[in-house]
Amino acid sequence: MTVMNQAEAEAYGIQAGDRVELRLPGDKRQVVVMEVSQSRVAPGQLGLWREAASICKCKDGTIVEAQLLSRPPSIQAIRKKLLGEELTYDEIHSIIADIVEGNLSPVETTYYVASGFVKPNSDAELFYLSRAIAETGEQMNLPVEVVDKHSIGGLPGNRTTMVVTPIIASLGLYMPKTSSRAITSPAGTSDTMEVLAPVTFSMEEIRRIVKKTHACLVWGGGLNIAPADDRIIKLSRPLALEPYDKMLVSIMAKKVAMGVDYLVIDMPIGGTAKVTSRKVSNQLEAKFNYLGKKFGMKVKVIKTMAREPIGRGVGPALEARDVLRVLQRKALKPDDLEQKAAYLAGELLELKGFCRRGEGERIARRQLDSGAAWRKMQEIIEAQGGNPTVDSEAVAAGTYHYEIHAPREGKVSVIDNRAINEVCMNLGAPREKLAGLHLHVRWGQPVRKGDKLLTLYAPSKARLELGLTAHEHSPIITII
Amino acid sequence: MTVMNQAEAEAYGIQAGDRVELRLPGDKRQVVVMEVSQSRVAPGQLGLWREAASICKCKDGTIVEAQLLSRPPSIQAIRKKLLGEELTYDEIHSIIADIVEGNLSPVETTYYVASGFVKPNSDAELFYLSRAIAETGEQMNLPVEVVDKHSIGGLPGNRTTMVVTPIIASLGLYMPKTSSRAITSPAGTSDTMEVLAPVTFSMEEIRRIVKKTHACLVWGGGLNIAPADDRIIKLSRPLALEPYDKMLVSIMAKKVAMGVDYLVIDMPIGGTAKVTSRKVSNQLEAKFNYLGKKFGMKVKVIKTMAREPIGRGVGPALEARDVLRVLQRKALKPDDLEQKAAYLAGELLELKGFCRRGEGERIARRQLDSGAAWRKMQEIIEAQGGNPTVDSEAVAAGTYHYEIHAPREGKVSVIDNRAINEVCMNLGAPREKLAGLHLHVRWGQPVRKGDKLLTLYAPSKARLELGLTAHEHSPIITII
Repeated sequence: MTVMNQAEAEAYGIQAGDRVELRLPGDKRQVVVMEVSQSRVAPGQLGLWREAASICKCKDGTIVEAQLLSRPPSIQAIRKKLLGEELTYDEIHSIIADIVEGNLSPVETTYYVASGFVKPNSDAELFYLSRAIAETGEQMNLPVEVVDKHSIGGLPGNRTTMVVTPIIASLGLYMPKTSSRAITSPAGTSDTMEVLAPVTFSMEEIRRIVKKTHACLVWGGGLNIAPADDRIIKLSRPLALEPYDKMLVSIMAKKVAMGVDYLVIDMPIGGTAKVTSRKVSNQLEAKFNYLGKKFGMKVKVIKTMAREPIGRGVGPALEARDVLRVLQRKALKPDDLEQKAAYLAGELLELKGFCRRGEGERIARRQLDSGAAWRKMQEIIEAQGGNPTVDSEAVAAGTYHYEIHAPREGKVSVIDNRAINEVCMNLGAPREKLAGLHLHVRWGQPVRKGDKLLTLYAPSKARLELGLTAHEHSPIITII
Repeated sequence: MTVMNQAEAEAYGIQAGDRVELRLPGDKRQVVVMEVSQSRVAPGQLGLWREAASICKCKDGTIVEAQLLSRPPSIQAIRKKLLGEELTYDEIHSIIADIVEGNLSPVETTYYVASGFVKPNSDAELFYLSRAIAETGEQMNLPVEVVDKHSIGGLPGNRTTMVVTPIIASLGLYMPKTSSRAITSPAGTSDTMEVLAPVTFSMEEIRRIVKKTHACLVWGGGLNIAPADDRIIKLSRPLALEPYDKMLVSIMAKKVAMGVDYLVIDMPIGGTAKVTSRKVSNQLEAKFNYLGKKFGMKVKVIKTMAREPIGRGVGPALEARDVLRVLQRKALKPDDLEQKAAYLAGELLELKGFCRRGEGERIARRQLDSGAAWRKMQEIIEAQGGNPTVDSEAVAAGTYHYEIHAPREGKVSVIDNRAINEVCMNLGAPREKLAGLHLHVRWGQPVRKGDKLLTLYAPSKARLELGLTAHEHSPIITII
């Protein structure tokens, strides 16, 4: 960003937001977006934002020439889309490339995001978009076939990834898993994995980890995968817009960048999940299948009902404890997490053609029972620089906690996912790894007055009180 | 704008773009939009932009409390519109009021601007929008009936306003005229009037001028009329979007704010004008009539063909000279300007019911011939602080000029309005009042080799050369 005197800008017909090419000493050229100011710079001067000055290697007093540039072709493409026309691959690529290179301002990019509401993207446009977003970022390029499992968010404690990945890799398949951190939930897979090992690596480091262990469990946000997607998401936040098309493109672009060949999509459906109805899930499934075909990727969508968290723990350490309890075959292991992970792993094995139809889940369970999955997880933890001898019961120790008991006899009729989020974030999750809660009851379970319903965990007394106050406003469990 | 530490923001679930209320010493409260930074501020600190700090009266070390606010209802309304639904008056008012009060960020406001492309605004929405934009700004509130004439832009040298206004006011009607400055053209009416008198006044000063003279010729941009319109226009510039609906709303909102009761709209139609086809002009006419009815304003749309500039001069001083030549009845007066001004003034008189149908133009011409219109203009110039004894031939004196001659015999087949703009802006218009050009020939006129075609005027030799270079690239007149 660069600023020039407003009167001077007017004299030259330059307006705020115009692109100007700066010709710098040593014949360097740099395109900047111009701002104008009545007072901050005098005529004949340009003010450069600190970052712009360092990119341009300019100091006070450097003499530069400035030339007004015509609008980039991507602007024409955005106008076209805003007027309801369909775009070609070249047009979409020009928009995405200009977003990535910083040639489009936030306002211009917002027009593009909004243009998706004028007329829904055609299937072809969704393909072009996913492809352009993948191609304008870093790519994994492994010389082997890659399998993956993706859970569409919206369910707290859905930590199947950390169970599925070691099962699959223990069978010799390649599953380089990148995950996100939580934004508006108590923990993302990366937050949970980070309890056990570092998760931030360069693409080159990830390739080494995957070569050694056939898998990884790393944070995708530290890489430059699908960078356009991040910018588009940022501009969607102020209005809390999350069109399904955008989610679809975002998932597929990242899978393409990671070179995925076989993909199982776990799609929970329910009032508090991202996919709220069976009709929407069917539409999404058709589009995932279409895009998979275009990219030469085998895709299978698995729809499940979303009614309560998977596992008992919510929050990074408490979810990691659930995962370890399953992998380490502890008595307290949450059966639903094991069940769902084995099922998804089995589907992935069958999709890959690793085994006959109907054999996958049994094979997955065998890898858990034999300890092979845990040994693989130990390899991954070690390759990522964590402690491979960690025990499930050690990860959530040393916290303040508080038990909540049933106020009356009855049945658990509601477990409110939104209230779980609210309470956990007040307890400090995901930043505070130890913050979160453990559910002692399941949906539909009969309880007696005084039975333990949940335990809240926090790293400090103050945080625990914040969480309790939040729980008074938004109780998690309803007994009727 | 205020910035907080990114890690801290994440811990509190605050995202860039969120609204936060600052509680300041002395129980003052101020809503700010939060930015986040990894390094510029430490946890526990807030960084305020200089303007924000001065509004909040904060110094380094001031202790403030910050509270995350929920999203304003206008955000919900923008989402609704973006999803293709029609908005109520209350919803539209909430958006416009939040734009004016700075409660919506540029990105959020852009979503609103873009939402107009999802589904065109209904007639009712256009009414709500014009009303909300008028009501959220300053209003004129004269205790008399007000008449007005509005020219839809796109034609250089269309200075009829400065002839129509004194004709109308000389007959005792009230015509408080606010105009714009040029943005992408060589001169707006305000730029031209400024050659004769100051044009920047407060609403209160304008009321005094109008009370005294029944008219004014002032700059509307210095007032707080329809402030939402200015912000929306600013956000439309990067994509050079100018939907007709927005133009319609912008005009009507300003007329409502000025309390106009009778309005003649001069709508030139042509390839280089804003309205490019007869079909569009008919649609616009119908909407102007609908809105007029809703606001209790009598509206008449006059459609004219736009082929060449009205008058001979282009640029502030050269256009002022044309206007004065008409008012002062000089031999060199441009007949087309006189003709069009008398016609529009006549239509306005008839619309108001000042005279019978068919009498208006004759009455207007009488006011010119008798000198009554010039005497009224002298009153207006004097009331605005200018020199009422100015002579037409004095306003454009003392410039560098250069004549361009016909290279061959033939007929004037093209007068390119875009080339006129380009050359005049290179000569320095509108900032340089004396810069511009004078056309010696009209469209269709036969010329001999060596005949004068145009004279370029500039305040300096350097500017004159810039204009000549521009003319080499974009010749204004084509002879065939």
